[in-house]
Amino acid sequence: MHTTHDLSRDDCARLLSAGVAGRVAVGTPNGPHIIPVNYAVDGESVLIRTTAYSLLGTYGRDAQLCFEVDQFDYELKRGWSVVVRGRGAFVHDQDELAEIARSWQPRPWATGQRNLIVRIPWTEVSGRQLGGGWDPWEHLPVRRLA
Amino acid sequence: MHTTHDLSRDDCARLLSAGVAGRVAVGTPNGPHIIPVNYAVDGESVLIRTTAYSLLGTYGRDAQLCFEVDQFDYELKRGWSVVVRGRGAFVHDQDELAEIARSWQPRPWATGQRNLIVRIPWTEVSGRQLGGGWDPWEHLPVRRLA
Repeated sequence: MHTTHDLSRDDCARLLSAGVAGRVAVGTPNGPHIIPVNYAVDGESVLIRTTAYSLLGTYGRDAQLCFEVDQFDYELKRGWSVVVRGRGAFVHDQDELAEIARSWQPRPWATGQRNLIVRIPWTEVSGRQLGGGWDPWEHLPVRRLA
Repeated sequence: MHTTHDLSRDDCARLLSAGVAGRVAVGTPNGPHIIPVNYAVDGESVLIRTTAYSLLGTYGRDAQLCFEVDQFDYELKRGWSVVVRGRGAFVHDQDELAEIARSWQPRPWATGQRNLIVRIPWTEVSGRQLGGGWDPWEHLPVRRLA
């Protein structure tokens, strides 16, 4: 068994920026939901594309959201996770949308139109690593190309 | 890009039963949190060990919880996910705890005492697969030994 270590904010930012898929939790009148999503990092915030009719589109506006990325190493029984929490904002400003379109070439894995962009600021960022003596950065499943 | 397919309840149960690590979401007065956890499947419910002082121990009792497992294939840009939702119950009954101890040899990845067991019944089960023509079962990172 391994002890748990907190990751620095720099490490969290690096791991968040490297990823392309994670999970977002949104509260609803019937309790929280977890939704797997593709995402991008823009400054100190996470961007997620969705639709107005989704759970995130219905309950995510001006609501506290939680976003998580992680990687489990089943063989070595270790892993890392980074969690971001912040108030979800829908991006409507045309200039901001144009800037996002320039910097974030959407490469979603799933088909379907997702015209709504939700921004989650990194108001709270925390990360954990299970087991010492290894660098999560060296064990990424994928790295976003700069 | 891939189209999304719903997984059958049997497929969801199979994938849930094969896993050992997932994520649970719990609502708090300050919005939802996502917590990576080791877990076991007991009948049609998910069992999670935690402590009375954790977020799950503080806000999970008799509260609607969401549990998720997934696997992303970054190279092929496909994946699957299974989500369970149900009302969290703390297991206090001594006979039930003894039965769980017999059937679930705890193999947590992290050190630390976790004496509180939270049960999440599979009141709602849903699963999604991104892309057809492949079997999530054939692409598991790990399978729990029977």
